[in-house]
Amino acid sequence: MQTLYVELGTRRYPIFIGQSLDSAELLAPYISGQQVMIVTNTTVAALYLSYYQAQFEKLGKKIAVCILPDGEKYKNFEQLHLIFDALLEAGFNRDCTVVALGGGVIGDMAGYAAASFQRGVNFIQIPTTLLSQVDSSVGGKTGINHPLGKNMIGAFKQPEAVIADMRVLETLPERELSAGMAEVIKYALLCDADFLLWLEQNMPALMQRDPALLAEAVYRCCAHKARIVANDETEKGERALLNLGHTFGHAIESYLGYGVWLHGEAVATGMVMAATLSEQLGWLNTQDVVRVKHILAQANLPVTCPYIPVEQFLGYMAHDKKVLNGQLRLILLKNLGQAVIHNEFTQDALIESITSNQLPA
Amino acid sequence: MQTLYVELGTRRYPIFIGQSLDSAELLAPYISGQQVMIVTNTTVAALYLSYYQAQFEKLGKKIAVCILPDGEKYKNFEQLHLIFDALLEAGFNRDCTVVALGGGVIGDMAGYAAASFQRGVNFIQIPTTLLSQVDSSVGGKTGINHPLGKNMIGAFKQPEAVIADMRVLETLPERELSAGMAEVIKYALLCDADFLLWLEQNMPALMQRDPALLAEAVYRCCAHKARIVANDETEKGERALLNLGHTFGHAIESYLGYGVWLHGEAVATGMVMAATLSEQLGWLNTQDVVRVKHILAQANLPVTCPYIPVEQFLGYMAHDKKVLNGQLRLILLKNLGQAVIHNEFTQDALIESITSNQLPA
Repeated sequence: MQTLYVELGTRRYPIFIGQSLDSAELLAPYISGQQVMIVTNTTVAALYLSYYQAQFEKLGKKIAVCILPDGEKYKNFEQLHLIFDALLEAGFNRDCTVVALGGGVIGDMAGYAAASFQRGVNFIQIPTTLLSQVDSSVGGKTGINHPLGKNMIGAFKQPEAVIADMRVLETLPERELSAGMAEVIKYALLCDADFLLWLEQNMPALMQRDPALLAEAVYRCCAHKARIVANDETEKGERALLNLGHTFGHAIESYLGYGVWLHGEAVATGMVMAATLSEQLGWLNTQDVVRVKHILAQANLPVTCPYIPVEQFLGYMAHDKKVLNGQLRLILLKNLGQAVIHNEFTQDALIESITSNQLPA
Repeated sequence: MQTLYVELGTRRYPIFIGQSLDSAELLAPYISGQQVMIVTNTTVAALYLSYYQAQFEKLGKKIAVCILPDGEKYKNFEQLHLIFDALLEAGFNRDCTVVALGGGVIGDMAGYAAASFQRGVNFIQIPTTLLSQVDSSVGGKTGINHPLGKNMIGAFKQPEAVIADMRVLETLPERELSAGMAEVIKYALLCDADFLLWLEQNMPALMQRDPALLAEAVYRCCAHKARIVANDETEKGERALLNLGHTFGHAIESYLGYGVWLHGEAVATGMVMAATLSEQLGWLNTQDVVRVKHILAQANLPVTCPYIPVEQFLGYMAHDKKVLNGQLRLILLKNLGQAVIHNEFTQDALIESITSNQLPA
């Protein structure tokens, strides 16, 4: 097992990364009070709820469970309210602990519920997808979608502790493994050229779910994210680099309708678009862009999106919440392994980066 | 005009207190971006919206308005969603500013919306009741009610600035002036015996709305609260003292149904109960309790509550969210001007403090 500490001053917290971890022992110091609310979804509950419930029972806690339907489309007010209802019906107070057992959707909703219930209670994350292990369980971003936009309502809420156990990835569907790998590759592209080389060598074994390699990949991504988040908790600067591929990706997801493509799939193609625009700025060469496409393809990720009329694509990009005072700023690549925030590109170059990476009409 | 700074490290913010203040000039430095959402209610909108809208227009801001119905019963999810809808329909981004123009309910809802929209945007408060000027606009507590409990969902959200203008108190209904005065008296009782003497001398003129005296009272209360909140932002210790009279008061409000008694009225009678229990512990003498009742009566506040069966009263108290691990802790008075958190009292003494301050069945 490796332990990584996210340094946020008084809210420093550990991420435990390994295989078949002893969660009761690891989490015991991080649970305040006697009341534990496990928030999960129907899919994860069938696989892992009884195991984790037993772990918390071993610690003598009063446990309540809130099982939500599975899927991004349920990341909404209605499901959030069900968590509040469950907490209040169980009689839980401000000294309770909310545990997110699931992927990013569960983590986002349970985290926002923990941030809001009684104006903030303890929060622990047990991410059960590769995506949530490397990304959404680190950094404190929580929230829900609004009919008019994704992740529009939420809070920055840091957990007390995170357990990333490779064991739960054994049952992860292929497509979700790939989607998670998109975020892994993102870290290599944005800040770690050595890691990109490592991924190019190890991608076949990673896709075969070699637990030691997966743990190493998760550790490296979490270490990068932890460093970036510690420097910039509320996303005023450096943290924006984590959005590599995301503004393009949001446009794809918005046009296709959320849930048609997985977030990681949209980000994968979005990163190809960002790389293409970076090439037009003279920062990457053609071979660099080929490497980006190749590593994504090795992880069975899409590198082109369906045809989307470019005006609509740009319209969705303009609605992304990273737009500041109407100015579109994108995360682009100075080099493979070096991302920057940039807004000096021509509209023609932007359009070309989109249209050259989508299928014809 | 007096300016008081709430010291919260990097989130230090000013409270401007005075009469007919120049809000455009005062607020200009605290509005980030170009988008201002004014959240208010129908009552306040009719009186002050056009004035404040003109102030922000003078600063060249894009203004949108969200007018909610007036009343505590509207402090709920449905109204909160209307604020989110208004923000998104206006196309506002994370660089917008939310302005609460109203009393505590508007401040709580607009503040929670500002805390949650895009995971947090700028927030400015223009409290229009005495209660919100001395209490709910200082300290960052925001939130909404849940059918199973008051203020159960929310966030700690500090404003960028607060304007407490005595001019808006001219139109405040008598009963709300009294309810606000209950919180003013609370500060005297919990930490400032000199202020209690000052109130005893000036209560008639305060109830006549002398603006200079009101401004002085608001300043003293805000100074006390600012000091306490700066020491204990998330209510782990000293800040709990601000709940003097509140656990008793919550029971009264819950039994009668929220909105039947105003919050300040329930707190007033709750403080009498707390004083009575303090007398039974030998801390206050009979004359002290008489002074408590007298100053409250001078402000036209109730010092006894209707008959409430004591088992029900205790049941509501046990549901208060200040209960920790099932242990009822109350804020009691060692002396007039010196509150403490205490849990060592007999059930009999507690019951006596309730029944001796309510009407017979």
